Amino acid sequence: MVDKILIGERELTAFCEQVLMRLGVPPADAKVTTEVLVLADLRGIDSHGVARLQRYVSGLQEGYMKPTDHSAILRETKATALIDGGQSLGQVVGRKGMELAIQKAKETAVGLVTVRNSNHYGIAGYYSLMALEHDLIGMSMTNAAPLVVPTFGRTSVLGTNPISLTAPASKEKPFVLDMATSVVPRGKVEVYNRLGKPMPPGWAVDESGRGSTDPARVLNALTKRLGGGLLPLGGEGEEFSGHKGYGLALLVDVLCGVLPGAATGLQVYADEKRPDVGHFFMAIDPSAFRPLEDFKRDMDRLARELKDSPRAAGQPRIYVHGEKSYARMEKHRKEGIPLGPKVVENLKEIGAQLRVPWPGP
Amino acid sequence: MVDKILIGERELTAFCEQVLMRLGVPPADAKVTTEVLVLADLRGIDSHGVARLQRYVSGLQEGYMKPTDHSAILRETKATALIDGGQSLGQVVGRKGMELAIQKAKETAVGLVTVRNSNHYGIAGYYSLMALEHDLIGMSMTNAAPLVVPTFGRTSVLGTNPISLTAPASKEKPFVLDMATSVVPRGKVEVYNRLGKPMPPGWAVDESGRGSTDPARVLNALTKRLGGGLLPLGGEGEEFSGHKGYGLALLVDVLCGVLPGAATGLQVYADEKRPDVGHFFMAIDPSAFRPLEDFKRDMDRLARELKDSPRAAGQPRIYVHGEKSYARMEKHRKEGIPLGPKVVENLKEIGAQLRVPWPGP
Repeated sequence: MVDKILIGERELTAFCEQVLMRLGVPPADAKVTTEVLVLADLRGIDSHGVARLQRYVSGLQEGYMKPTDHSAILRETKATALIDGGQSLGQVVGRKGMELAIQKAKETAVGLVTVRNSNHYGIAGYYSLMALEHDLIGMSMTNAAPLVVPTFGRTSVLGTNPISLTAPASKEKPFVLDMATSVVPRGKVEVYNRLGKPMPPGWAVDESGRGSTDPARVLNALTKRLGGGLLPLGGEGEEFSGHKGYGLALLVDVLCGVLPGAATGLQVYADEKRPDVGHFFMAIDPSAFRPLEDFKRDMDRLARELKDSPRAAGQPRIYVHGEKSYARMEKHRKEGIPLGPKVVENLKEIGAQLRVPWPGP
Repeated sequence: MVDKILIGERELTAFCEQVLMRLGVPPADAKVTTEVLVLADLRGIDSHGVARLQRYVSGLQEGYMKPTDHSAILRETKATALIDGGQSLGQVVGRKGMELAIQKAKETAVGLVTVRNSNHYGIAGYYSLMALEHDLIGMSMTNAAPLVVPTFGRTSVLGTNPISLTAPASKEKPFVLDMATSVVPRGKVEVYNRLGKPMPPGWAVDESGRGSTDPARVLNALTKRLGGGLLPLGGEGEEFSGHKGYGLALLVDVLCGVLPGAATGLQVYADEKRPDVGHFFMAIDPSAFRPLEDFKRDMDRLARELKDSPRAAGQPRIYVHGEKSYARMEKHRKEGIPLGPKVVENLKEIGAQLRVPWPGP
């Protein structure tokens, strides 16, 4: 592996904010958008971190992402709302959607907000994590550009459509599930391609729809739209229940796409001028069901029960979801955020183009 | 495969209802409980059909399932409720819970009901399907006795914790996802054991926590509580994202166990006299977000887009979740419900014991 370059959270944050502001994004919105990107890097989800700043720069420059917030609430009940994102930055709209869900959960015990006409919103976990600050259960999902092949298909129709759910605990770390519904993200295929290594079988299919371990072939087929793509969680066919992962990806598209009236399936990003991404946010107040302290105590107990259960031969420990990310976050805050040289190179180019000095080496 | 015995839905239903009534279950509750069991057989989920009648007979005879409905609403808001199941039949409590969620969704756009102190409620899909009759999106989840091993563990801590979500369509069949969060159900391991065949790798682990293809060894370890169990969706370790299936099983336990204050993890069924199973029900009114007809039209479009997309080499068709079950239901209603000879033998024994004549061959 190539050496990573370490950069401080504060410097990286200031740089990204400056870049976005140069493109007309107001300071508060630049802050939110940057926060989502940097949080991904802090938590170790490199594929969704500042490595993607270029995507937002391009979106703003090409105009399909609006620098200022054009979102509006279209319909509302005590517990629900529908937001039109107005092609604003997905992070700005997403944060607004989750804030509204949280507010409704505080008033009505549950808040459910869907969004249409938005853009890529970064990591799903950013929004569900917001609920924890209010001692609520948080849920966040989004649809995405087609990349996942349905069971028995040979072209990608659904996105990697992630599901995130968080729940507060007391002494233990909160439960933070943040998962794509595909076996692996596209980024993993790219890593194997760079290393020139065959992938494990069951990650992806080529243009014939058959499982392939050749990352170059899969990426080539995807890029040239010949077919193929990532497999849903569970893998190829039904033997390992790939149809379940496919079903989860579809569940996400029903709640994020069909419910708000956003694009679904192949229509997501089909119009380059209007990606029409859809999101789903939910917050639930545990104290509407039982005393919050009891809820948190039982979250602790369940986490401990899992972590203290006997380990498989050769395994040092069992994790609960979120733990690894919290550990990475602590490490990265202390030591700096590790970025690959290609990512840094690209960030420097963006900086040079927009007259924002790169703060790192 | 052994020959199946065909029996009519009506005859099978009448038999099960009679059996339950002999054990003190009121007619209306016997009807609901039977409906859930027979629906499983109709939809082809044999493992959760009348083959499990014995479990309910035993539960009622041993007293940990109450024949009459002892459930009560403990806490309630406009959009949420917590029900204590009072150790009543899981199906009776489950139906009540989902009815309440539906009623709340009609009034408040979303209804969310959790249940504690319940019993095994059969297929998760029965309850989510109820929402379709009201043109609502339905969700149903339950925790269950430990059978699934967490990633890097070697003993089962979580149940097969199913997730079901339904959404109405117009010309297409409704979307009906009803999936355990394990790779396969225990029943599949039992089938391979009966056939004396090795299982595919990645379904289960033995008492050492290593993947095993030996169904007899896995079942023996489970039965004698030596360890081992089913793997979460995604399989062993993290290479194929088994930690995601593990996370989904945990998500279900958080919402079904921790949220209502039911048993969680190893505590589910730990007390033989009080299994303390927990459920989660949700209904969402699509018309709070957009006109119902638009929602249904887009459900159709998404389903068609998936089904009409190019197929993998050698595959006759692509399915949307629910289609196979609707086809089986039609077939079984016409031709009769196929039951294995062992299942029929057991049902005859139950009938003989309770003086209910078996209506079939």
